[in-house]
Amino acid sequence: MAEKFKYGLIGSSGRLGEEVKSVFDEYKNQLVFSYSLEGGIRKDIPEVIIDCSLPEVFERSIAYVKEFDSPLIMATTGLSNEQLQILKNISNSVPVVQSYNYSIGIQILLKLVSIAKEKLPDWDVEIEETHHRFKKDKPSGTAKMIQKIFEGKEISTSSLRLGNIPGDHIVHFGGLGEVLSIKHSATSRRTFAEGILKAAEFVLHKKNGFFTFTDVIF
Amino acid sequence: MAEKFKYGLIGSSGRLGEEVKSVFDEYKNQLVFSYSLEGGIRKDIPEVIIDCSLPEVFERSIAYVKEFDSPLIMATTGLSNEQLQILKNISNSVPVVQSYNYSIGIQILLKLVSIAKEKLPDWDVEIEETHHRFKKDKPSGTAKMIQKIFEGKEISTSSLRLGNIPGDHIVHFGGLGEVLSIKHSATSRRTFAEGILKAAEFVLHKKNGFFTFTDVIF
Amino acid sequence: MAEKFKYGLIGSSGRLGEEVKSVFDEYKNQLVFSYSLEGGIRKDIPEVIIDCSLPEVFERSIAYVKEFDSPLIMATTGLSNEQLQILKNISNSVPVVQSYNYSIGIQILLKLVSIAKEKLPDWDVEIEETHHRFKKDKPSGTAKMIQKIFEGKEISTSSLRLGNIPGDHIVHFGGLGEVLSIKHSATSRRTFAEGILKAAEFVLHKKNGFFTFTDVIF
Amino acid sequence: MAEKFKYGLIGSSGRLGEEVKSVFDEYKNQLVFSYSLEGGIRKDIPEVIIDCSLPEVFERSIAYVKEFDSPLIMATTGLSNEQLQILKNISNSVPVVQSYNYSIGIQILLKLVSIAKEKLPDWDVEIEETHHRFKKDKPSGTAKMIQKIFEGKEISTSSLRLGNIPGDHIVHFGGLGEVLSIKHSATSRRTFAEGILKAAEFVLHKKNGFFTFTDVIF
Repeated sequence: MAEKFKYGLIGSSGRLGEEVKSVFDEYKNQLVFSYSLEGGIRKDIPEVIIDCSLPEVFERSIAYVKEFDSPLIMATTGLSNEQLQILKNISNSVPVVQSYNYSIGIQILLKLVSIAKEKLPDWDVEIEETHHRFKKDKPSGTAKMIQKIFEGKEISTSSLRLGNIPGDHIVHFGGLGEVLSIKHSATSRRTFAEGILKAAEFVLHKKNGFFTFTDVIF
Repeated sequence: MAEKFKYGLIGSSGRLGEEVKSVFDEYKNQLVFSYSLEGGIRKDIPEVIIDCSLPEVFERSIAYVKEFDSPLIMATTGLSNEQLQILKNISNSVPVVQSYNYSIGIQILLKLVSIAKEKLPDWDVEIEETHHRFKKDKPSGTAKMIQKIFEGKEISTSSLRLGNIPGDHIVHFGGLGEVLSIKHSATSRRTFAEGILKAAEFVLHKKNGFFTFTDVIF
Repeated sequence: MAEKFKYGLIGSSGRLGEEVKSVFDEYKNQLVFSYSLEGGIRKDIPEVIIDCSLPEVFERSIAYVKEFDSPLIMATTGLSNEQLQILKNISNSVPVVQSYNYSIGIQILLKLVSIAKEKLPDWDVEIEETHHRFKKDKPSGTAKMIQKIFEGKEISTSSLRLGNIPGDHIVHFGGLGEVLSIKHSATSRRTFAEGILKAAEFVLHKKNGFFTFTDVIF
Repeated sequence: MAEKFKYGLIGSSGRLGEEVKSVFDEYKNQLVFSYSLEGGIRKDIPEVIIDCSLPEVFERSIAYVKEFDSPLIMATTGLSNEQLQILKNISNSVPVVQSYNYSIGIQILLKLVSIAKEKLPDWDVEIEETHHRFKKDKPSGTAKMIQKIFEGKEISTSSLRLGNIPGDHIVHFGGLGEVLSIKHSATSRRTFAEGILKAAEFVLHKKNGFFTFTDVIF
């Protein structure tokens, strides 16, 4: 159904990179260019480049985007403000999608929470996030994205660390007599690769512009 | 903050009627007219009439609405199609709000489910509803309202009966790698009285028209 | 089925006292003695006395227990160590049950958590408690009872405050690959009155002794 | 900490077999014998044999157990009554563990549910199980194991199918005023391999006997 395309992958040997390859492969898209510490390939000009590497690789990624004049899906986390600015500059000539979370469900959750917040201004709000025991930072980056929706208001946020849970987020709204809860559970990393695929399809025929993953979904 | 008003109450001695009085009283609105099997009062012309009685009382309610030329909040359940049509006719001269569920949270849930459904067309959907052991009908009326959102598609719906739970509804959306769930729990009947208050404030300065509780909230 | 008995009630006009009366009445037990700030009755010698009042009333309660030589169910919270010691002393002559939580389900939860803890020593543990927005203390007394099960180990405990939720408690155990959760939700105050009834039936034919509500249930 | 041992694996190329290898390897146990459709190895006499293959392979497995005079962990599902009887016969000479579910958490859940059932005989019970959309049978085998605890009583069981959820099971007990829920979520197949490791360590120094996984855990 969806259009097939040729893509490039920067950070192809990382955990997310491997998942991207697996999902893109399943949908019959063709890897024609890759770059990683373990080496890479260069078979053809990619119609879109996915970057799920590290901030240290950023400059090289930008160089490839310029060389191929190719749209960019930026999935690397921890970028500096300078790097984000460079992305915006380059988006004048090619389309760029940048996000710290390519889960489709989380985007829907953010949207639903915004609506509920607007309609239930007097209700109590509680955020909960649960992740595996190895996650050190509290609260999660996604919980911070949720907090931003309530700008100006401090939202109580509980962080639980349990076993190897990939990542759960819940936002509760509590009124006198009822509770409304919106919950997202990631059950595998695959979900992020699926989101990146949606982003790639989104930019394929765009001329240029800077987009978030929210733009892709809504 | 909110405007104070004089109201009439039909079905004032029922469980919901008592809750309406209690909540309206708390917000300093004044009961000037009431009707119930235990008798009633008639002190002044009500600015709005609340009906939370039985379908058998319907004709009398309409007579009062005409007599006082007063807006109507219809919270009686189990009305016939003829009665609904009469409501629509009378809404040409006074504003009418009619709903089978005045919980604000359920309205938000319905809205959020509609949005999620639109954005996640390929995801699996499961509805769950849990009520007290005394509830005979399965699934609940509210679960049926949720099912309607997915018109044309049959949605698997699980009904649990446990202790004296006032009423929980959950809609799950399941993709490959993530689950998004929207849940509403009623913790007391008060929530319905609060919704009726919102509806009353909504019609206070309307000229006429037929509204659902969804119109009130959104 | 259960034996009918005559009972006395101290603190009969409080919220819990009213619930106790309502439940005991439903089971055809007879109130023959009561004491509250609003006055009391004295029709007969009670076979058991329930105290759900305040620590300030403690001395008077003890005096009544001695006068009637009657078993005592102590449901007043916030007792001092001295008062607890007096209860233990008096339990040499009459049976006494003392607990800060007469919910049957919470007792089962405490038992189940103890077993799970023993069998899953290496799993992560997280406690969650959710109560209405008016509850000031964090964590709840019941959460502290749960923490005690893990003596010596500090257990992460999250406290959520939402609407008018009567009280939820969850204990999660997280291993690599699975999570086991034990959850209790109070849906009404009635549950505490039912537990007090069980305690009353438990002591009815006891000679003497000091008991917790755990002894009653297990 | 735990003792290292040499093991044999029948069904080594299946999904569970691969997970067993991965976990046993991590704990430094040594694979000295294996059998699968893709071939096998035979380096030494195994101290314990794990069978996670298919009923069709059963005879061969028994032959290996006899040849090596080795304890057996039987994790193959769908065995016939005749095959189970053969296992019991052979357990006179070697120790055998047989179960259809080697999740430690599920064993704890079964235990906790038994206790709760005994203590809450009058409460409503509801079982819920949620699995990935590809699971055809309803209810799950584990749900059936839970139902057996309530022998003689028909227990309402809801089956949800959502995305790729590995497997959730919940048992709710509902009284008038409270709900107690016991929930297990599998987050990966690894959990079963960990349970098989426990079973292997359990039989290592047993002389003979037939054991369930419940015996291993409790």
